[in-house]
Amino acid sequence: MHLSPKALVTGGAGFLGSHLCRRLLADGYDVTALDNLFTGTKANIADLLDHPRFSFVLHDVTQPFWGQYDEIYNLACPASPIHYQKNPVETTKSSVLGILNVLDLALKTKARVLHTSTSEVYGDPLVHPQVETYWGNVNTIGVRSCYDEGKRVAETLCADYRRAYGVDVRMVRIFNTYGPNMHPKDGRVISNFIMQALGNHDITLFGDGSQTRSFQYCDDLIEAFRRYMSLDRATVDAFFARHKLGAAVINTGNPGEYTIRELAEETLRQLPESTSKMVYAPMPQDDPKRRKPDIALAKELLGWEPKIPLREGLAKTIDYFRKMSGK
Amino acid sequence: MHLSPKALVTGGAGFLGSHLCRRLLADGYDVTALDNLFTGTKANIADLLDHPRFSFVLHDVTQPFWGQYDEIYNLACPASPIHYQKNPVETTKSSVLGILNVLDLALKTKARVLHTSTSEVYGDPLVHPQVETYWGNVNTIGVRSCYDEGKRVAETLCADYRRAYGVDVRMVRIFNTYGPNMHPKDGRVISNFIMQALGNHDITLFGDGSQTRSFQYCDDLIEAFRRYMSLDRATVDAFFARHKLGAAVINTGNPGEYTIRELAEETLRQLPESTSKMVYAPMPQDDPKRRKPDIALAKELLGWEPKIPLREGLAKTIDYFRKMSGK
Repeated sequence: MHLSPKALVTGGAGFLGSHLCRRLLADGYDVTALDNLFTGTKANIADLLDHPRFSFVLHDVTQPFWGQYDEIYNLACPASPIHYQKNPVETTKSSVLGILNVLDLALKTKARVLHTSTSEVYGDPLVHPQVETYWGNVNTIGVRSCYDEGKRVAETLCADYRRAYGVDVRMVRIFNTYGPNMHPKDGRVISNFIMQALGNHDITLFGDGSQTRSFQYCDDLIEAFRRYMSLDRATVDAFFARHKLGAAVINTGNPGEYTIRELAEETLRQLPESTSKMVYAPMPQDDPKRRKPDIALAKELLGWEPKIPLREGLAKTIDYFRKMSGK
Repeated sequence: MHLSPKALVTGGAGFLGSHLCRRLLADGYDVTALDNLFTGTKANIADLLDHPRFSFVLHDVTQPFWGQYDEIYNLACPASPIHYQKNPVETTKSSVLGILNVLDLALKTKARVLHTSTSEVYGDPLVHPQVETYWGNVNTIGVRSCYDEGKRVAETLCADYRRAYGVDVRMVRIFNTYGPNMHPKDGRVISNFIMQALGNHDITLFGDGSQTRSFQYCDDLIEAFRRYMSLDRATVDAFFARHKLGAAVINTGNPGEYTIRELAEETLRQLPESTSKMVYAPMPQDDPKRRKPDIALAKELLGWEPKIPLREGLAKTIDYFRKMSGK
């Protein structure tokens, strides 16, 4: 009898989690998606529920869970400011208690772990573009801290479970990512702009719109996840030892830089029927001004770089939002 | 019947905790000391065990606990690199799960909380002296991160329990503090130097000994704790609102700067019988080069500043270590 490899995806009904589940099923895995449905939705995985190799478990990562998996992908955590500031304490708990539960499970079962960290660990960076050795510039007591600091200490726990207990945990620091299944009201810039343009509402730019962002299409990121997890441990260990990094952590993002204004313009270009105009609003507290990944490590380790241009990814995303909102 | 006010001190058998328990008893409190005795010792509180208003509870802060207290002082966490690097995962847990348990208890019982943070949240600071608004420069994945990042996210949780749930939690960022009851083998510079000098072993200076530290005598710090906790909430809230800080956090330390070499010299001056010599060793990984508190906020809020000069505090500390080691 041939057994499929087994994967657990925490946050499996979320934006990225749902894409990852689909990809793992395509790759032959037996997939369990664990989600508390705080920001994830059943709609994101509706087409998977009947799949013979897919299971959905309604559960909160802050509570322990059990299962024998070959690979655990830890994606559970509200990731957009609107969501994570709604209940800041729960946000921090989902990062910290979530990774503790994942790492404890991995320690007992020898599962390999991919932990998704974030470019937010760099905060409002003083180094540009951001390299993995940059320590970041983060406020411990601001309104974004629940996410930023929760994610920072989750990295620390990953590094220490690896160093002290030998858990095979690999980390990615994810920069802005977009695509179908994003939450339409998560307040992130791409979903905001598309929803505003589709609804013929004005497109709101914070500050003067000259702050830049890098935009990574979701499929590019999922490809990086899969390549990273398919490497054997010795290769990963040797790579990070050679680069003198204290943990197995790489940036994943699209280094192509666009200003927020360029993004608004491209969105309107792809929605010529929209009557939206661009308007300006003050910058929110602690909003980072500029962020761009250095992806040299990911290129070298994974032979990977983003392939999908903004124009193409945006078209797919607009298509998704158009169908979802019935336009 | 007159009831004494009740205080809980987590880490109550530790260096600072034991001094605080003694002070609270002198101030008329009914005191419960909670400690797992990982770095704390019963010897530190031996003289208190018979006191009618003192109780010792052997318990780990990472596990929930219950009790009705007016004030909770959260001091539990291994604080010296030698101790906190011994089991880095437990160090982070004692910070994060410890403060979660304290804050949850305070939320249910309306206790006032003093959380002890640390100058380590500033990491290897790029701003000098350090002000409370400085965000710090900390590595998330280094060997010190278990302490630094655990303490950073504990601050975040304090800020969010205060903002979101109204818990009356006040924070101090403690800079280097010394005095009797320090652990003789905690690897911190003052205890190291005294123990080396008492044993006629060479005094080890890392780097060239020109890095500076501020040294605060324990009694000065305990005085700051008590003044801070005796302020009514409206005063505290108004003060931090006026200073536009996201949480009630102040530095407490002695801004007098000494080089490590000066400290070694003063130690040897006070121990003329010692035959120790000063020797030099390489700087350990991520060791901060320079740290000095700006204590303007503490001065303004508490009318407080350190009173005990290094010479005097060092004499008391040497006296303690001398007795303890039977010399």
